[in-house]
Amino acid sequence: MIRINENFLKLRPSYLFSEISRRLAAFQDSHKGASIIRLGIGDVTRPLPRACIDAFHKAVDEMARQDTFRGYGPEQGYLFLREKIAEFDYRSRGADIDADEIFISDGAKSDTANIQEIFSQDVRVAIPDPVYPVYLDTNVMAGRAGDMTDGRYSNIAYLDATPDNGFVPTPPDGQVDLVYLCYPNNPTGAVITKERLAQWVDYARRNKALILYDAAYEAFIRDDDLPRTIYEIEGATEVAIEFRSFSKTAGFTGTRCAFTVVPKECTAYDSALRPHSLHGLWMRRQSTKMNGVSYPVQRAAEAVYTPEGRAQVKELIDGYMENASLIRSSMEDLGLPSTGGENSPYIWVETGMDSWDFFDMLLEKAHVVCTPGEGFGRCGRGFVRISAFNSRQNVELAIDRIRKVLS
Amino acid sequence: MIRINENFLKLRPSYLFSEISRRLAAFQDSHKGASIIRLGIGDVTRPLPRACIDAFHKAVDEMARQDTFRGYGPEQGYLFLREKIAEFDYRSRGADIDADEIFISDGAKSDTANIQEIFSQDVRVAIPDPVYPVYLDTNVMAGRAGDMTDGRYSNIAYLDATPDNGFVPTPPDGQVDLVYLCYPNNPTGAVITKERLAQWVDYARRNKALILYDAAYEAFIRDDDLPRTIYEIEGATEVAIEFRSFSKTAGFTGTRCAFTVVPKECTAYDSALRPHSLHGLWMRRQSTKMNGVSYPVQRAAEAVYTPEGRAQVKELIDGYMENASLIRSSMEDLGLPSTGGENSPYIWVETGMDSWDFFDMLLEKAHVVCTPGEGFGRCGRGFVRISAFNSRQNVELAIDRIRKVLS
Repeated sequence: MIRINENFLKLRPSYLFSEISRRLAAFQDSHKGASIIRLGIGDVTRPLPRACIDAFHKAVDEMARQDTFRGYGPEQGYLFLREKIAEFDYRSRGADIDADEIFISDGAKSDTANIQEIFSQDVRVAIPDPVYPVYLDTNVMAGRAGDMTDGRYSNIAYLDATPDNGFVPTPPDGQVDLVYLCYPNNPTGAVITKERLAQWVDYARRNKALILYDAAYEAFIRDDDLPRTIYEIEGATEVAIEFRSFSKTAGFTGTRCAFTVVPKECTAYDSALRPHSLHGLWMRRQSTKMNGVSYPVQRAAEAVYTPEGRAQVKELIDGYMENASLIRSSMEDLGLPSTGGENSPYIWVETGMDSWDFFDMLLEKAHVVCTPGEGFGRCGRGFVRISAFNSRQNVELAIDRIRKVLS
Repeated sequence: MIRINENFLKLRPSYLFSEISRRLAAFQDSHKGASIIRLGIGDVTRPLPRACIDAFHKAVDEMARQDTFRGYGPEQGYLFLREKIAEFDYRSRGADIDADEIFISDGAKSDTANIQEIFSQDVRVAIPDPVYPVYLDTNVMAGRAGDMTDGRYSNIAYLDATPDNGFVPTPPDGQVDLVYLCYPNNPTGAVITKERLAQWVDYARRNKALILYDAAYEAFIRDDDLPRTIYEIEGATEVAIEFRSFSKTAGFTGTRCAFTVVPKECTAYDSALRPHSLHGLWMRRQSTKMNGVSYPVQRAAEAVYTPEGRAQVKELIDGYMENASLIRSSMEDLGLPSTGGENSPYIWVETGMDSWDFFDMLLEKAHVVCTPGEGFGRCGRGFVRISAFNSRQNVELAIDRIRKVLS
């Protein structure tokens, strides 16, 4: 008899965004024609940079001619793109990462979801709270999470991110084997300093643990003292895998391109304590289970690294950052303590009330959609996430409306 | 301590194509300037249809403008594409498949690799021999295959495809739970009739088994009596998932688009024997682990279904089919019994000798690359796969050279 993977039955319903949609639809039903501003979902709104568009078209034209047509590409991604990434994202920051250590994919979501496949089923997993749900859900599906009691899975080590620790958890006293970190953070917008990140790298080295470092929002870092990659920390290449994306950097959420760095010296062990290079395991996983990213998309991503592309990306991010700054300062003016919005597109606002009640109030009175923090985990109770991904005009309008409701 | 998934250590080295590359490189080293014709790998060589190129450009332009820009799309794929597929690939063949039952992805390789995640780890898996290695390797990684003894994994039920059964295995006497079938077949080029396929559907219904039906080469079927989809068989929607791709249909191997059909009534069971819809499980898997396919790529795929697109695809496939027919008849003229090449781009040739020896002979004497059948499984010993994916001129030249060597 064909039987299902029963770990799927342990997943919570994907409640957050469907519940937001449900409440939004109900509101729209009873308020026909209301002009709603969405600052909820973390999706970009501005078009692709011109340099990417031009490169995209050029590559499509190559696919139209016999002599320039490309069939299957390398599963790891084309070298032309991997070399640019190694140069501009890593060596320029003093991080010794080689093009061979970079794997191109269709998204950081896919990579952060799939990476757990190369680890043993009984490693102990540490996951921040609040958190991007993919880290947790994929470990539930793989059978690592245990059972749900009191809103938390029994086998997961939760790393609470709270006002007390500035939303940056410190390494635990006990042993964990696989640690998910994300900075600039989704959902809190918090950033990590080199010193705090070095504590995690030290922990991993001492405990033979591995850090999965999600740096999808790296392009929003403007403070040059902050690490742009975990590999700026000494020794991190032995104990960390890093995830990056063109989604939030260059507006690729609908175009789909990202990459993962697995340094060759990054190591894990078998049950006989023999070391294995994770680079080889990930290469085998990727070459067995996917066939690389669309060639024109890789050319569009490559254009991010041209002089024009870099200038256009900076302008794109600058626009969102102005929104973020405006939201952050307005929330604080209204007396709501806030994090993020300075090196991050997200602002994490302490509402002083239940996060769903605050959501409802903003929707009903200001016609503005935010994301209730509770949907990201227990530590998100009382918070909402506001996203800077919208036009300046809409953000200003939303702030005006919120001000009228709250002041 | 971070430990690896030790099932990866049970994988055989991905020997076949790397060994071909090694022998080819060695030959080129000692025969500088030799003009080598590659009929080995199953990759297309002709450019994308004009209709796809035009739609691709148009969608890239949409990504350049604020008012037409698209961010995250539906994880399941855009409805505009799913509706076309439902209409042209299914309802036109009398198969009652709805757009909601179709999931767009970046490749049939990804989908055939990932689908096993939704099943219990201890289902009994049946895999043909010879076979496309992805079915087997992904089950090895998941821990379902057992140990390798005598060249075969202990827990896999192998379905031998041999001249005796016309390269179409019949259902086994005992119980298997998850059956991989691929028609037109890679590597043998064999096709399955409605009667033979109905035997498998009957088996699955009687035994509560599930069929994973890989129809990536469906576009090469020219005999109208052959099933183009498993859903032409009565009752198949309850017991079969089907995989399709634009790779071989419209030359998308480097552009990346495919789809999987999971009918809503397709069922598997939990350990308490409660039925579960696989549609819901796959939806959850896909929405948790990926973010959909690039928007411009989906628009390019949609163009396959326009009147111009359909005509251009037919012309594309016709070209390859003429090659296939030429190869098949030439091999038979040379006294080598062959299968495929009639409703398939592959010709499976019985060489009368060791398949690697035949490969070496063709490379050294005819400067032609084929694929040794042994690389696809034990039952491939003595066979080679010749692919029709090349220009007519190269195929004719290759045949001339092979004729001189063999006659």
